[in-house]
Amino acid sequence: MAERSLIFPAEEFRTRVARLQAEMSAQGLDALFLTSAADIFYVTGFLTRFWESPARPWFVIVPASGAPVAVIPSIGAELMGRTWMTQVRTWEAPDPTDDGVSLLAETLCDLLPESARIGVPMGLETHLRMPLADFTRLGERIAPRRFVDGTAAIQRVREIKSAAEIEKIRMACAIAGRAFARVPEFAGQGRPLDGIFRAFQSALLEEGADWVSYVAGAAGPSGYDDVISPAGPEPLQVGDVLMLDTGAVRDGYFCDFDRNFSVGPVSDPVRRTHAALWEVTEAVMAQLRPGMRAHDAHRLLVEGLAARGVAAGGGRLGHGLGITLTEWPSFTPRDGTELREGMVLTLEPGAWVETADGLRRLLVHEENIVLRATGAELLSPRAPETLPELN
Amino acid sequence: MAERSLIFPAEEFRTRVARLQAEMSAQGLDALFLTSAADIFYVTGFLTRFWESPARPWFVIVPASGAPVAVIPSIGAELMGRTWMTQVRTWEAPDPTDDGVSLLAETLCDLLPESARIGVPMGLETHLRMPLADFTRLGERIAPRRFVDGTAAIQRVREIKSAAEIEKIRMACAIAGRAFARVPEFAGQGRPLDGIFRAFQSALLEEGADWVSYVAGAAGPSGYDDVISPAGPEPLQVGDVLMLDTGAVRDGYFCDFDRNFSVGPVSDPVRRTHAALWEVTEAVMAQLRPGMRAHDAHRLLVEGLAARGVAAGGGRLGHGLGITLTEWPSFTPRDGTELREGMVLTLEPGAWVETADGLRRLLVHEENIVLRATGAELLSPRAPETLPELN
Repeated sequence: MAERSLIFPAEEFRTRVARLQAEMSAQGLDALFLTSAADIFYVTGFLTRFWESPARPWFVIVPASGAPVAVIPSIGAELMGRTWMTQVRTWEAPDPTDDGVSLLAETLCDLLPESARIGVPMGLETHLRMPLADFTRLGERIAPRRFVDGTAAIQRVREIKSAAEIEKIRMACAIAGRAFARVPEFAGQGRPLDGIFRAFQSALLEEGADWVSYVAGAAGPSGYDDVISPAGPEPLQVGDVLMLDTGAVRDGYFCDFDRNFSVGPVSDPVRRTHAALWEVTEAVMAQLRPGMRAHDAHRLLVEGLAARGVAAGGGRLGHGLGITLTEWPSFTPRDGTELREGMVLTLEPGAWVETADGLRRLLVHEENIVLRATGAELLSPRAPETLPELN
Repeated sequence: MAERSLIFPAEEFRTRVARLQAEMSAQGLDALFLTSAADIFYVTGFLTRFWESPARPWFVIVPASGAPVAVIPSIGAELMGRTWMTQVRTWEAPDPTDDGVSLLAETLCDLLPESARIGVPMGLETHLRMPLADFTRLGERIAPRRFVDGTAAIQRVREIKSAAEIEKIRMACAIAGRAFARVPEFAGQGRPLDGIFRAFQSALLEEGADWVSYVAGAAGPSGYDDVISPAGPEPLQVGDVLMLDTGAVRDGYFCDFDRNFSVGPVSDPVRRTHAALWEVTEAVMAQLRPGMRAHDAHRLLVEGLAARGVAAGGGRLGHGLGITLTEWPSFTPRDGTELREGMVLTLEPGAWVETADGLRRLLVHEENIVLRATGAELLSPRAPETLPELN
């Protein structure tokens, strides 16, 4: 198992920590206190599905200089010992009387002066993955050191992907691309949607996904109503549009894109809407540049759809991507995050299909890109220009 | 999709809310404020893999009397609308300027008197799934109403499973049992562990899992060193013990048990250790009774292993199970939680194999049970008494 616990060479992690420390310095932070699977994987390379169990908290402290320190349940010592990390302290978790709080307090007090400002991700799209009562207790134990909002420090660093990270995401995208190419093998008229979801997940595994953290989709006449429901047993019918969307994981990195299929011949309203989605994606990929804002990407997509005669729908129209299925920023009218070279993003325009029966149904298109100085570079194999038909 | 969004009849949820409200009343809580996927699924039936995206927070408020209120991103309105919930308020998320805080504050102030004590899960095995800065802001907005620790109210209710929940877990266990029976089809000498992990996940899907939230495992000569690592490309060798462990999900409910296999003939030390694990599980299933404590189960397992000549190893020796892969309590020396009728639990004894080369390697055994007045009832198909051999 040694090979897979060293997904990247140690140099990759040293560079990440140096970038974090530079950002922390700029923001006057003496340390970062990290609790989420994504942040801890980013700093340490510690990759396990064991996060699925809510029983145990895990911690990494990144000081202003020097090596990061992991404070973790002893059940993880073996695996953490195979990463590049040299500073690992453990306790026997879960312990209802003291679940790491004393060890953490001691570690923070060892490492940091009393004046320390310790950054914790507290902002949009973050969660504290430890019991809130323990966090409060810890804050009292380390006073006068104090916790402050450190969201920006970790986000400004993680949002710019290294060359090695981009290759991991490209690999996840290629795996999903091969699985999408096999959809006609297991989806078509009369096939129940829940069976299609299962077969699609198997196809992703067979094509090389380590695991499948996300599959969503929908099917309905000329489009769908929502994109987050689990599948039911209803069989596909002629006239349906089937959408499958996946976050497949390889080496800890996600892809996140969907594909649409017509069951039987494509109707004219669906054809027109799909063409608008495909074209606007092409156009915005050509327009995107570092220095734009997230809301600029949203505006370009909405205006591009309107110029092609369809109305945007379906919530945000793209987002970051990497260690989690979705990362900041969000392509919405209100997100002012600067788009920078090296960001991996999804372009996810949705649009309403205006059907003959007067109902509005949704189509959502999605690609994964990396933003280069010269514009967008595709990571996902491009969706076909015309909607594929299933029998 | 309507069928699968109604995993239980509305009556099941009404009963859950009534039980929560009774517990809240006993603890002097005017409301519960819930943010986790598990708690929200428990109250509403809202089931989606969309939680995999950290972008959006979701909220449910359970008042002291009357119907619960969902305060959620508008992208979930369609799916929540198909559950039994009647009170649903939405906002356009993610919104970096106000991601639901105003709508939440308004809702809480509408529902609750100024004196209200609002329970939030803050204790062991809980997390607040919303940005910490927003929680602080919300607390200021709703003052003098205040948040207090409400962990016990939700845990004392959720830990007792209804008959319908027990049947869901039994179904997940049966799916995994069928997949484990197929392991000889894809595992054996020369097969790489990562390929076995992929094939096992596909088998779980083919046997009826909706998705596979957890697979772990390990392989090594006469046992293994750790049980949480991802798989590497190393092929199985004669003399290895292969362990596979899964949390497969059906209708939102987990199983969580493992199985061991010998690659080629079983060595004597492995045979002896496996026999002790199998027998101690049998013995403790016969001994467990409501009214015992979690630490009693731990003690029975440790003493039972010692009486059979092997030393317990591998951390906690069992835990709760249900909507998440692991739930409280934990079978450790320090967990005093009372074991009650209707709890679904894992018995997970681990033991050290003392090998001829002087190294200590781990074997872990696991079954899923429901605690009845008269003792343990198996939910997982019982592991074979002798370790199965793979070719």
